[in-house]
Amino acid sequence: MAQNIYDDQNFFEAYIQLPRQIQGLNGAPEWPSFRSLIPDVRGAKVLDLGCGFGWLCRWARENGAAEVLGVDVSENMLTRAKSFPQDPAIIYQLANLETLEPLPNIYQVTLSSLTLHYLKNLPDLVAQVYHALCPGGSFIFSVEHPVYTSPRNPKFIKDSEGHDVWQLDAYLHEGSRTTNWLAEGVIKQHRTIATYISMLLNIGFTLSAIDEWGPSPEMLKENPRWAEHRERPMFLLIKATKSKQ
Amino acid sequence: MAQNIYDDQNFFEAYIQLPRQIQGLNGAPEWPSFRSLIPDVRGAKVLDLGCGFGWLCRWARENGAAEVLGVDVSENMLTRAKSFPQDPAIIYQLANLETLEPLPNIYQVTLSSLTLHYLKNLPDLVAQVYHALCPGGSFIFSVEHPVYTSPRNPKFIKDSEGHDVWQLDAYLHEGSRTTNWLAEGVIKQHRTIATYISMLLNIGFTLSAIDEWGPSPEMLKENPRWAEHRERPMFLLIKATKSKQ
Repeated sequence: MAQNIYDDQNFFEAYIQLPRQIQGLNGAPEWPSFRSLIPDVRGAKVLDLGCGFGWLCRWARENGAAEVLGVDVSENMLTRAKSFPQDPAIIYQLANLETLEPLPNIYQVTLSSLTLHYLKNLPDLVAQVYHALCPGGSFIFSVEHPVYTSPRNPKFIKDSEGHDVWQLDAYLHEGSRTTNWLAEGVIKQHRTIATYISMLLNIGFTLSAIDEWGPSPEMLKENPRWAEHRERPMFLLIKATKSKQ
Repeated sequence: MAQNIYDDQNFFEAYIQLPRQIQGLNGAPEWPSFRSLIPDVRGAKVLDLGCGFGWLCRWARENGAAEVLGVDVSENMLTRAKSFPQDPAIIYQLANLETLEPLPNIYQVTLSSLTLHYLKNLPDLVAQVYHALCPGGSFIFSVEHPVYTSPRNPKFIKDSEGHDVWQLDAYLHEGSRTTNWLAEGVIKQHRTIATYISMLLNIGFTLSAIDEWGPSPEMLKENPRWAEHRERPMFLLIKATKSKQ
């Protein structure tokens, strides 16, 4: 099964200090791009896979969603999610996304932010999402970009002219990558862009949008350090749709 | 307009020595993958953009295509194409793909092999292809992979442990790249994967398949040097379809 790094106390203590956990969605630089892919959620039943502290669940309710189910593997995360003012229309469920019980076929929108690249067995979950969506429903997710997850030793180095270059290798060698991010030994699954997309098409989804996120010029003015994300993208955002028929 | 490097005599003399020019399609390692994306062409009208020596045009006819139009900007290339035994069902047309005259709406299949990354103005051509295809028609193309076209200085270097790594940068900085491939100053256009796909979706195409080509284990046994193409992919293959309605 996928590693549950979020219940490692050292990792969790560092994780909750990240801007996106303190400031919520507005602390996530890719949020405006992600949000632009989400259809109108008024009256919709929404599913959030890897809901963490529940930021997306609460956003969906604030924007008119009728019901939201947030699923996460981490007790730490869900305990924090439940510490926010209670909303009876948001249900949080503790579950491993790789061995999820069948979901009812009632959802108009499924969201997943920066979660799927932790899962070894992704095709089964994608099939579950497809079956849980109503006709015309959409699945919007972000993952770490394959160019970011690919390298055996993911970092920038100086080239012969002193410019920062990302040392890319192993792109077509899919599988586990162990990195030291906030804690030692965090395990992610590297997949190519073609693999993510083919998985969606094979199960019956239509690809509706794709974004290799990078900071806008305005964002760079405020955060010049983010310029590196224009050299090698960090996030991949995808919207897939289930046919209306 | 796009650079017409193929009418540079020095480039051309080197180009015609490449395995894919001497051996035709079987000299192109990505051909089995590309071919697998092409639908049955029996009885079809086929368009080939950037047809070069006409290898794909002749393949289409050998596989039952009714008519083939091959378009190329290079007189050198078309002269060579016409030196093969004549087939009245193959028409070769000298034209700049960026300023193509409107095409009739009669094609079932449009092909383009390793051509589109030379074009500055690609959206207009994609719109032309869309209008030229009959309902249910498909557009199959290959380009140099964005990870391959992206770097300011595209090459492998040794990392601190002595492994070859591809020095990736400038991925989200789209535009011209000047490289020295067979001749000095060959100009290509770098676009991201998201840009290629979004261009297709925006014009109305459905994405049907995507392949970030890499050599198979069998190919690597015969050509061990191709292992580098598994570290950073060299070709991107895409199949897009026009709706049947």
